[in-house]
Amino acid sequence: MSRQFKGIDLNKRNEIPQAVITRLPRYYRYLSQLVEKGEYRISSLALSRLMGTTASQIRQDLNYFGGFGQQGYGYNTKNLCDRIGDILGNNDCYNTVIIGAGNLGKAIASSSSFAHTGLFLKCLFDVKPEIIGQTVCGCEVRHIDDIDSFWAENRVDVAILALPPSAALAVAEKIASLGVQGIWNFSEVELGLDPEKVAVRDVHLVDSFMTLCFDIKRNEKKY
Amino acid sequence: MSRQFKGIDLNKRNEIPQAVITRLPRYYRYLSQLVEKGEYRISSLALSRLMGTTASQIRQDLNYFGGFGQQGYGYNTKNLCDRIGDILGNNDCYNTVIIGAGNLGKAIASSSSFAHTGLFLKCLFDVKPEIIGQTVCGCEVRHIDDIDSFWAENRVDVAILALPPSAALAVAEKIASLGVQGIWNFSEVELGLDPEKVAVRDVHLVDSFMTLCFDIKRNEKKY
Repeated sequence: MSRQFKGIDLNKRNEIPQAVITRLPRYYRYLSQLVEKGEYRISSLALSRLMGTTASQIRQDLNYFGGFGQQGYGYNTKNLCDRIGDILGNNDCYNTVIIGAGNLGKAIASSSSFAHTGLFLKCLFDVKPEIIGQTVCGCEVRHIDDIDSFWAENRVDVAILALPPSAALAVAEKIASLGVQGIWNFSEVELGLDPEKVAVRDVHLVDSFMTLCFDIKRNEKKY
Repeated sequence: MSRQFKGIDLNKRNEIPQAVITRLPRYYRYLSQLVEKGEYRISSLALSRLMGTTASQIRQDLNYFGGFGQQGYGYNTKNLCDRIGDILGNNDCYNTVIIGAGNLGKAIASSSSFAHTGLFLKCLFDVKPEIIGQTVCGCEVRHIDDIDSFWAENRVDVAILALPPSAALAVAEKIASLGVQGIWNFSEVELGLDPEKVAVRDVHLVDSFMTLCFDIKRNEKKY
């Protein structure tokens, strides 16, 4: 039986490869820039050259979501950008807390990069007495022991774990039990939660640094 | 003509797909954990199950670097981990500066995650008078105008750009002209440098957050 939601075949939804999903934000970035520059129309070929990919990959990727191009016209950049933003939840509102209000937690809280996403920061949590009670970007830093009472009074959709590895697992299990929908995990610890209950994206910054070092070795002809 | 370096066919080096390179740090992480747990041998099948991939992908990936398994034995975890660490430059020494000593720059400087990489922090740079002269993780924060004199007196291999988008391009061009080998770019700006002269890895944290929001929508059956 065909199950549809907003024109999407739900039976096929699990067939969208991870690689396609991780490319969506990149499409969004390039399209945003084109719209900003006042370029309202682009062919898949021109877009592919700009992005260093192929026109057929762009078409294939977008076909998972219904496809958005018109034969002979190309893409309307504003429409496509809005649609991809919609797919990525940029127009939704995710009440978010940051657990760990050290340098990383503060860097995320104060970054302007999230302005176009669905991230709505509600609170930060920490354990250090000198940080508790501070205000970071208009949000209070509360003690991590207040998590239960905060959750009881507020809807929390997403938690950002910016805390040391040793504390990450217990906190993740706690907030999973409280019903958090997504965890953005900077703790370098595998959380092992059921992905159909809690969406988790791990950020391993070190991985990216290592690949940079590999690139350098390549340029030195060591690979 | 076959050009060899440490058993690697240099003519083939540019054939290593990006996807393979970006998977190497993940192999390194899993293998490090196995070594830590005292598990010194693993079959490609067991490793693939642990990592949620396939044995054939692991074998294919590692074959780009010569392959490391023994038929019927599997992998020696310690050997393989060391070799991959070697490929990723973890045993080399990259003199590194962080440009932008705000929350993000400090978070990177103070992270323990880089302990096993080749990152050797030498200095931080900023423009804010109240930050200049501070010591972060044993390194001085100097004014960005000191870049020339610092470069003249020190070898600098890698620069981490943790500064606002508006300042990123000029700084990147400056340090590229001074001969930096690699730039780890958190500025969200495309630097447009010649990749054979300066290796660049861009970190778009926002991309990862957007895919998390997509995962949440999927769990809600909105995709």
